[in-house]
Amino acid sequence: MKLKGLLIDLDGSIYRGDTPLHYSKEFIEFLRERNVKFIFLTNNSTKLPEEYMEKLGKMGISSNIDEILTSGIATAIYLKKIKNQGTAYVIGEKALKKVISDIGWKLCEDEDIVDSVVVGLDREFTFEKLRKANYYIRNGAKFIATNPDKTFPTENGIDPGAGSLVVAVSAASQKRPFVIGKPSPYMGKIAIEKLGLNLEEVGVIGDRIDTDIYFGKRLKVKTFLLLTGVTLKKDLEKSKIKPDFVFENLEYLVKFLKEHLEK
Amino acid sequence: MKLKGLLIDLDGSIYRGDTPLHYSKEFIEFLRERNVKFIFLTNNSTKLPEEYMEKLGKMGISSNIDEILTSGIATAIYLKKIKNQGTAYVIGEKALKKVISDIGWKLCEDEDIVDSVVVGLDREFTFEKLRKANYYIRNGAKFIATNPDKTFPTENGIDPGAGSLVVAVSAASQKRPFVIGKPSPYMGKIAIEKLGLNLEEVGVIGDRIDTDIYFGKRLKVKTFLLLTGVTLKKDLEKSKIKPDFVFENLEYLVKFLKEHLEK
Repeated sequence: MKLKGLLIDLDGSIYRGDTPLHYSKEFIEFLRERNVKFIFLTNNSTKLPEEYMEKLGKMGISSNIDEILTSGIATAIYLKKIKNQGTAYVIGEKALKKVISDIGWKLCEDEDIVDSVVVGLDREFTFEKLRKANYYIRNGAKFIATNPDKTFPTENGIDPGAGSLVVAVSAASQKRPFVIGKPSPYMGKIAIEKLGLNLEEVGVIGDRIDTDIYFGKRLKVKTFLLLTGVTLKKDLEKSKIKPDFVFENLEYLVKFLKEHLEK
Repeated sequence: MKLKGLLIDLDGSIYRGDTPLHYSKEFIEFLRERNVKFIFLTNNSTKLPEEYMEKLGKMGISSNIDEILTSGIATAIYLKKIKNQGTAYVIGEKALKKVISDIGWKLCEDEDIVDSVVVGLDREFTFEKLRKANYYIRNGAKFIATNPDKTFPTENGIDPGAGSLVVAVSAASQKRPFVIGKPSPYMGKIAIEKLGLNLEEVGVIGDRIDTDIYFGKRLKVKTFLLLTGVTLKKDLEKSKIKPDFVFENLEYLVKFLKEHLEK
């Protein structure tokens, strides 16, 4: 099998919450030995790549900053592509505001017009922020959503996710957003560009059939489902979306790759 | 024509903002002379019936408290019907909280479980309120929306309406609300019950084809469109929803009723 790069989901694939999943360290070491490039992808815009590096490091998994792509970073890359130095009204937390500010865009609150409105998870969301986003979009700003996830799992249960704020802005402004995060293929295109590979050389690994695998299908790359997270065998049987390969855990995936990767 | 009662829209039909529309005073006086009962209906849950009485009074239109039905009052009537004394988590402003409290329901914030979550327009909406509503609905609370209007016209433009908050709660909780306000027929049923009339004796008057007239169609009553508000003649031609009668203004409506009302 021709496989030179992987887009790898984190939560449910590499770890669950703060606990590393079986064989995650060995899996990443295997990829490095065999020179398979990879990027970890996450829809979470509230953390910086550095924070993920640190989290992975604690699990014995070394990574560099270019190997982590958050929906926040992908949003910043998108903004930079449409305009070198623009103005944005951002509904989001510190990390999202930082990455947008870092690429040279100006964060605005009081101007009459901005180039873009970016909506990500913001646990300090208010009616006033909704009103401002609506106002700017109605005045012509491009409406961008970091990710469409309507819920966000926490230790205390299921909380509203970025997608729940996005639908409010969308309802008020009567505009649909351009979505960056999975299952939108946009974040995948950015990742593949970073890897410098062609579609037929790339695979997606994840634990959610409706986001990770659907995302891989939309990108037209190989898809590897891990049964270590959200999607269970019975969900897989019911789903219309069929991954190319399914594995009980990362150890089976490594075994498979050992046998099937081109030397 | 057999017409013993009317459900009358306010903004765009009786007044526009703070300005009374042509012949509104004469129209109401005509209805009183001819013993046609009526109820003014509004989807706005942020004002009390008393405030509407005062507003109408300033325009020379006298009314009593039973002639005004806000979506807040209709919500309170609905709650009272499902349970005499229940508990509610309310996203809404002072007026909505007052009418729910007035019927003997308890407003809760910190309990583990409530009977109902009510969502109306709340210009102090926060992520924390969204999180709580989501939590209660996931714990079994009935989800009720005062009205579905996604936008709300203000002097400064178009602001987010109750419906924009409702979609956020709906996205997070993955539940659809029971909707009280127009075009849901529920508020109409309450109004007709208050009038003590049968469906064939009732008509709906309003300026919006997609809310007022659609609402009348769903209620299966006669529909009268006024071209003094949102819907213009060209919208009417394009719309699949056809009102039974269309009038340029209230004076023409009164002329028509003079000729066609049963003596």
